[in-house]
Amino acid sequence: MRATIMRGAGDVRIEKVPDPTIIESTNALIRVTRACVCGSDLWPYRSMQPSERGQPMGHEAIGVVEAVGADVRTVKRGDIVVMPFASSDGTCNFCHEGLPTACIHLSFFGNQGNEGAQAEAIRIPYADGTLFPIPVGKDDALMPSLLTLADVLGTGHHAAVVAKVGPGKDVAVVGDGAVGLCGVIAAKRLGAERIFLLGRHPDRIALAREFGATDIVSERGPEAIERMRQLTGGHGVHAVLECVGLTQAMKTAVEITRAGGAIGRVGVPQDAAMPGSQTAFYHNVTVGGGPAPVRAYIRELLPDILEGRIQPGRVFDRSVDLDGVPGGYRDMNDRKALKVMVRP
Amino acid sequence: MRATIMRGAGDVRIEKVPDPTIIESTNALIRVTRACVCGSDLWPYRSMQPSERGQPMGHEAIGVVEAVGADVRTVKRGDIVVMPFASSDGTCNFCHEGLPTACIHLSFFGNQGNEGAQAEAIRIPYADGTLFPIPVGKDDALMPSLLTLADVLGTGHHAAVVAKVGPGKDVAVVGDGAVGLCGVIAAKRLGAERIFLLGRHPDRIALAREFGATDIVSERGPEAIERMRQLTGGHGVHAVLECVGLTQAMKTAVEITRAGGAIGRVGVPQDAAMPGSQTAFYHNVTVGGGPAPVRAYIRELLPDILEGRIQPGRVFDRSVDLDGVPGGYRDMNDRKALKVMVRP
Repeated sequence: MRATIMRGAGDVRIEKVPDPTIIESTNALIRVTRACVCGSDLWPYRSMQPSERGQPMGHEAIGVVEAVGADVRTVKRGDIVVMPFASSDGTCNFCHEGLPTACIHLSFFGNQGNEGAQAEAIRIPYADGTLFPIPVGKDDALMPSLLTLADVLGTGHHAAVVAKVGPGKDVAVVGDGAVGLCGVIAAKRLGAERIFLLGRHPDRIALAREFGATDIVSERGPEAIERMRQLTGGHGVHAVLECVGLTQAMKTAVEITRAGGAIGRVGVPQDAAMPGSQTAFYHNVTVGGGPAPVRAYIRELLPDILEGRIQPGRVFDRSVDLDGVPGGYRDMNDRKALKVMVRP
Repeated sequence: MRATIMRGAGDVRIEKVPDPTIIESTNALIRVTRACVCGSDLWPYRSMQPSERGQPMGHEAIGVVEAVGADVRTVKRGDIVVMPFASSDGTCNFCHEGLPTACIHLSFFGNQGNEGAQAEAIRIPYADGTLFPIPVGKDDALMPSLLTLADVLGTGHHAAVVAKVGPGKDVAVVGDGAVGLCGVIAAKRLGAERIFLLGRHPDRIALAREFGATDIVSERGPEAIERMRQLTGGHGVHAVLECVGLTQAMKTAVEITRAGGAIGRVGVPQDAAMPGSQTAFYHNVTVGGGPAPVRAYIRELLPDILEGRIQPGRVFDRSVDLDGVPGGYRDMNDRKALKVMVRP
């Protein structure tokens, strides 16, 4: 089959690779009908050392189940399924507690020896605990929104949950990427009163407003902090969704959180140590978050997509086939595309 | 009157100072009947630059109200009151939300121009919002325990609340000082199943066991982390109370928290940036805490003291008059005393 392999920074290729096969009895094979390029795929795209072996890419997908191992119970051939960005066994304590991203059998797709989803097909470890069957046809018009259940919608939702967004709360979303925009959707959905988006790209800002953002702050760094203070009576907001991960984004998040408030961070942190620790302490600000348990959130979020209450699929502004994937990486890296959908 | 003044590292003196007076109509004056030396008083004791003017010391007290300003409504002359370590107006949004340590009129005793409590008397700003009258005589046998409501009990409780301690949870307390020991009391009181104390002083360990600690870990640094992993099936504990503030203590706290768990930190952080940020992220560990809103916790904790269910006053292992205060600092600094009570 054909799959996306990264061989170094800026070097993304579509290559012939062996077809995936069932290895363990808990595996499934899915034919990928939708995948996408993630903001986190851009980190190796900018920095990966040249690799002879290469890295299969892609960790978000919807597909059709083609085959299942002997011990798979909850999905069957022909099912349309969401493939979250990580596999989980569905049976350990962490899975039962709703944190499949701490599963004792956790592994990430497009990483840790797993295949990638920017491919014609992919093998799924622990299919029962990983895949989520959805009641739609494989070309349903809702596919773009359903595809966001694999990562960005659940991730934005996680930031909002951890930041304790609720009715009447003032919320700030740091970052106008696909996750930040899904954070706006999540904040609105959870009842936030004011939603500030910290971002500066006109098309993304326009989309954020349609998703529910009430205020836009396009300044950066200390100016953004100052502007947020002006807009919030000097005190900041109850809940901050940190959807970037860079040092300055986290610094800003801490400084704009109201005393006693909470930060949900889902941007992979650049820093080994968290900036703003003392400020967070003196303000009794709580900082949480991490790899989102998106598999556990699908049950809650799916009805809102199926019934048209939210349209997170609007974050996709480009669709490509496999041959278009290298160009998709380039355009996302150049910020010419917000998020690229792949139809293998 | 006589008061404790610090004039530099290691230089604590009892000096004659002007009697405090009512300055604002919201003030009260209290005659201090009990005060104490706090672990946090040892920071300047170790590092303060010589100061001609000196710093009045002490931020925990119980006293008798001697006089109130014209606008004071909830305390009156003769009341026995707890004086928390910070003043708060009792009327701002933060006070109403239960976070008086974010009060818009917050100030710390023995700091920021306020007098100290290791003295014969002290002026209280915003007496209505700050002081908490208690229904006991001034020499009640419960005084030591009641005195902990001014700081260390409420601070340990805050760590436990922020770390989401509850029935069935496994809890670790990092630090065997007075706050850590009160953290053990708080964890037990909130229903924790196993309570690990990370500490190494035999007398403190013995007291911790009486307070409810089930396991003692006396290793340090990487060895403590390894031991905690052995004792918890490799996964760590749900809740960690970080009661030290030093870099290694915070690193340990992060490494021993179970994925999805929470850290309540009440040790004043030594680091501008929080160590272990990436580990906390990948494990979805929440980090919160800060200056404890002890005034807001008194209502909940007081009945347990009055009815004898908890005995936090046992953290005091030394009692001195004002003349004994310099020696009390020395003994706490040399770890010859756990916590020193002052009876001016």
